[in-house]
Amino acid sequence: MCELLGMSANVPTDICFSFSGLIKRGGETGSHKDGWGIAFYEGKGYRSFHDPIASADSEVAKFIQQYSIKSTQVICHIRKANRGRVCLENTHPFSRELWGQVWSFAHNGQLKGIKKKPLNGYLPIGTTDSEYAFCWMLGRLRAEFSNKPTSKVKLRKLIQTLYTEIAQLGVFNVLMGDADNLYTYCTTKLSWLTRQAPFVEAKLLDADICVDFKKETSSTDVVTVIATEPLTSNEEWTKMVAGEFSVFCLGKKEFTGFG
Amino acid sequence: MCELLGMSANVPTDICFSFSGLIKRGGETGSHKDGWGIAFYEGKGYRSFHDPIASADSEVAKFIQQYSIKSTQVICHIRKANRGRVCLENTHPFSRELWGQVWSFAHNGQLKGIKKKPLNGYLPIGTTDSEYAFCWMLGRLRAEFSNKPTSKVKLRKLIQTLYTEIAQLGVFNVLMGDADNLYTYCTTKLSWLTRQAPFVEAKLLDADICVDFKKETSSTDVVTVIATEPLTSNEEWTKMVAGEFSVFCLGKKEFTGFG
Repeated sequence: MCELLGMSANVPTDICFSFSGLIKRGGETGSHKDGWGIAFYEGKGYRSFHDPIASADSEVAKFIQQYSIKSTQVICHIRKANRGRVCLENTHPFSRELWGQVWSFAHNGQLKGIKKKPLNGYLPIGTTDSEYAFCWMLGRLRAEFSNKPTSKVKLRKLIQTLYTEIAQLGVFNVLMGDADNLYTYCTTKLSWLTRQAPFVEAKLLDADICVDFKKETSSTDVVTVIATEPLTSNEEWTKMVAGEFSVFCLGKKEFTGFG
Repeated sequence: MCELLGMSANVPTDICFSFSGLIKRGGETGSHKDGWGIAFYEGKGYRSFHDPIASADSEVAKFIQQYSIKSTQVICHIRKANRGRVCLENTHPFSRELWGQVWSFAHNGQLKGIKKKPLNGYLPIGTTDSEYAFCWMLGRLRAEFSNKPTSKVKLRKLIQTLYTEIAQLGVFNVLMGDADNLYTYCTTKLSWLTRQAPFVEAKLLDADICVDFKKETSSTDVVTVIATEPLTSNEEWTKMVAGEFSVFCLGKKEFTGFG
């Protein structure tokens, strides 16, 4: 199984603190040593960093930990391979353009029989179930809406339907983003936490690192962090339940549904 | 105008030496200070690094210069903005998936009226002429071949036709790659050089750096480097002529046509 980390914020925010905890699980405090990746949204722009080796040993991961990239939305994944060999093309997050935006996807779980579903336009580059599921969903989104739907509700409903359909095939803990929203689904493990004023000090579970968010933020900042397992020891994380679908936008949870 | 750098090799090879010369032109020995990007093919895998600031000042560029990523194909671009503001989404190389492979594109020049051409499926994320041209070409490739053509010649001919059509609109010096081939076109400036045994020492034009390729390579390595301007002072670069279309594969020039 893999580990996921996501962030949604109302101002460009760096994720160095949470990332420092997560990458320890990639070969040091955890066994997720089969590659890792992180994707940053910066306005309409998108950049990602991938390495097909253990994050705890990765020079690229060390660089990202030290170099503050400020972003309103982040998706990060560290991999323990189950389906698909260890290589760059099997490293999450996967990304594709749809409606002139970059969509990005990271997944924890296995999906039995996903490759029987027909694809439409988007093809996998690697061999994981996860990338296949992502391609299938984007194909369905494009088949339904040739342009980006003006109704946020219609789009969200379709994503929830697709998520629910995939979740029938196994474990589907997922983070998927477009340039504006983070769409999550939980079948077994996903927790979240919103940081806003009054900010407090937070302490990582996986590394001896604290950060005093009072010093790092302004009083109007709102930042939500989502992870397969809580990353800090002294904050209250909310555990999602099986079948929970949520949408995060600009730091806040905007919608939750079940199905 | 921008600067381009490409590499094609028969074994995974790092590009640190050539990249060290090129990034100096991004704000130091040259005026191309509006962002830069580099893309590496590693088997079917692909990863890219982008920064919307001058490469000479970029921490990401410093990291890439020191960290040896071994790849069989590289596309790199440093930008001097003419159309499209300075931001991450306007930073080359652009990439999209077609036929289950990542296609990557970097361009030097302006293309008057390119945005009048109809798109098919692939939409730009940023506002550059270059990304628009790339999206238009991929849409045409997919319209012609719903799956990857088994005939390399048919694919190459179509790309040459599309390149020639775009080149009517202005300056079109370009590097475009799929996972196997690098397709280049020259209207005003593009030079190339193949390094193979017996290897010699090479000296950069833009920085006081030499490398002795005898020590860095094995006798069967073949590596071609392509750039808008020669990068070394003591090697013989071949200047492409206006209208020259070439395909590089595994380090060698496989085809040249004119049109």
